[in-house]
Amino acid sequence: MANTSEIDFRSLVLDAPLALDSGRELAGVQVAYETYGELAPDRGNAVLIFHALTGDQFVAGTNPVTGKPGWWERMVGPGKPIDTDRFHVICANVIGSCLGSTGPSSAGPQGKPYAMQFPVITIRDMVRAQMAMLDALGIEKLHAVVGGSMGGMQALSCAANFPERTDRVLAIATTARHTAQNIAFHEMGRQAIMADPNWQGGDYYGGEAPAKGLAVARMAAHITYLSEEGLTTKFGRRLQDREAKSFGFDADFQVESYLRYQGLSFTDRFDANSYLYITRAMDYFDLAEEHGGLLADAFRGAKDTRFCLVSFDTDWLYTTADMREVVHALNAVAAPVSFVELSAPYGHDSFLLDVPALDRVVEGFIG
Amino acid sequence: MANTSEIDFRSLVLDAPLALDSGRELAGVQVAYETYGELAPDRGNAVLIFHALTGDQFVAGTNPVTGKPGWWERMVGPGKPIDTDRFHVICANVIGSCLGSTGPSSAGPQGKPYAMQFPVITIRDMVRAQMAMLDALGIEKLHAVVGGSMGGMQALSCAANFPERTDRVLAIATTARHTAQNIAFHEMGRQAIMADPNWQGGDYYGGEAPAKGLAVARMAAHITYLSEEGLTTKFGRRLQDREAKSFGFDADFQVESYLRYQGLSFTDRFDANSYLYITRAMDYFDLAEEHGGLLADAFRGAKDTRFCLVSFDTDWLYTTADMREVVHALNAVAAPVSFVELSAPYGHDSFLLDVPALDRVVEGFIG
Repeated sequence: MANTSEIDFRSLVLDAPLALDSGRELAGVQVAYETYGELAPDRGNAVLIFHALTGDQFVAGTNPVTGKPGWWERMVGPGKPIDTDRFHVICANVIGSCLGSTGPSSAGPQGKPYAMQFPVITIRDMVRAQMAMLDALGIEKLHAVVGGSMGGMQALSCAANFPERTDRVLAIATTARHTAQNIAFHEMGRQAIMADPNWQGGDYYGGEAPAKGLAVARMAAHITYLSEEGLTTKFGRRLQDREAKSFGFDADFQVESYLRYQGLSFTDRFDANSYLYITRAMDYFDLAEEHGGLLADAFRGAKDTRFCLVSFDTDWLYTTADMREVVHALNAVAAPVSFVELSAPYGHDSFLLDVPALDRVVEGFIG
Repeated sequence: MANTSEIDFRSLVLDAPLALDSGRELAGVQVAYETYGELAPDRGNAVLIFHALTGDQFVAGTNPVTGKPGWWERMVGPGKPIDTDRFHVICANVIGSCLGSTGPSSAGPQGKPYAMQFPVITIRDMVRAQMAMLDALGIEKLHAVVGGSMGGMQALSCAANFPERTDRVLAIATTARHTAQNIAFHEMGRQAIMADPNWQGGDYYGGEAPAKGLAVARMAAHITYLSEEGLTTKFGRRLQDREAKSFGFDADFQVESYLRYQGLSFTDRFDANSYLYITRAMDYFDLAEEHGGLLADAFRGAKDTRFCLVSFDTDWLYTTADMREVVHALNAVAAPVSFVELSAPYGHDSFLLDVPALDRVVEGFIG
């Protein structure tokens, strides 16, 4: 990963050690975050956005790591669906990540990076850290929590575990439980990282990072983010900068070239151990299991929370059927929930892309 | 790969050099094959079975490499759907592979393994080699060609390019064209192999094979062979030999343990360079493109061939929609075709597994 050590991330350090689901404690937790828009005098207009697996706190504006626009620039800003003229938007880098919050690349108690001595964390642990951040910021109750993909898992986890902290929950393209297929894809990616000799059991900091393994993991994940139709429309079998097949192993097809680029460019901005820890947290996620085995029980405390759930018809990673299970659980506890399956060609990534119907749903629900 | 050099594969060497789609020629091609059942005096009862990507010629009986039953033992044998009391079944290892037929691990003209000097081959080249094998065996016309997955591609390619060689074509769980998503998964696997430092640009023979990279490639491919439902039924989120999650990076979930085993065990029996070459051949496969861009034109010579096409409802690698395109092309040239989508929970792998409906279709069509 490049340059992130040179960036002065806005952050705070939690006063108390964070008690984790594993039974371990994490002391001196740093949480990096960004805010957009003013906090109202009554502190009642805060919206917490949770980011996805490889996301970060730079929702809008310019991301200082990549130099590119924030990952939800289309959704967050003045006059946008999550209107920063009206709302105080907060987004924190999840613990376990590598963009300023404490993770495996952070210095541990001995002063050197935790690496694989970092405790295995869960989605709930990520949310705990952010609730503690809100305490530090003096924000007791949120107008809404919002998230897509792993961000949606955090939103659901927040509703289940901290229902008193938010009035509204908006969860997009997500699930209450990682399936065997979800776990399988992540495990394959982890094995790709661990198979890279540069990984060195995680102790690669200061040396060569396991970039090739991480690139392969990212390539595989990327395929799951796109729909078959989307790939066909975008690339089909079109060749890359050539008239005919090369009968070799170069990237003949555009889709090959695209994937290679996605894999390689990712390694500049992300830490391989963070990828291991965050995918593990996602695989461990099973909101029902956490609450005695019945998903409805997870939401018993959230009867007065308003929910909005959105799935995409071409998302085969977290499907409409997965989302419907959440809807049924919320119905079982009589929580107010609206649910919509949107039609969009981009697969799982639709939540990040140009889907005007999503803009309208978000704007309408956030109010 | 273990031990295969100690096995005396039954094989023949083609008289003439094989002209390849790339424009190159391959001389001294060895084709390893097995036969089951007696050839009739009129030589009219031969059935050629084409194997899949990582398959081999050991359709029935005991596979001498793995010590396990042949890969289609349930389908081929005395009294079985492809009845060896009546038919003379032939199955050849495809060129490019590593089970006795000429491939990248074979000695090239300089006496050392071809490695990446092996020419890039196509599905049609594989079929060409097998047609030349039939010439050498004195078999002019087949009762049927049969294949699933890449075997089905060869069956369709045979119908398109050598329609005079067979009366019947049975293609199962296959496609006439690799899609962008199909290519993407293969490319990711190839990158995993090439990222393994043991790969050494392909020149690893005599040293350590790139087993870790090959295992990762196999894991990814394996996910695509199974349906989401099948994975859920088989594994769900069940833990492997433990009561609770370990909060570590061991294989906590059964599906992780299964994938790791599938990846590792594969590296004992398969050559990484063969995996590169055969996946490349599959990615290049586009039967319409080979015949001027219109799939129907591929089958103009096969009007008098009887076709049977089978897809599985849970196969997301080569879908029923893919198969329907083949049906439409055959309809366009008025070829006799029957098509059935079978219901089976196992995804793409259904063609290899216990699906009694498939047995009946195969038995009925082969006659």
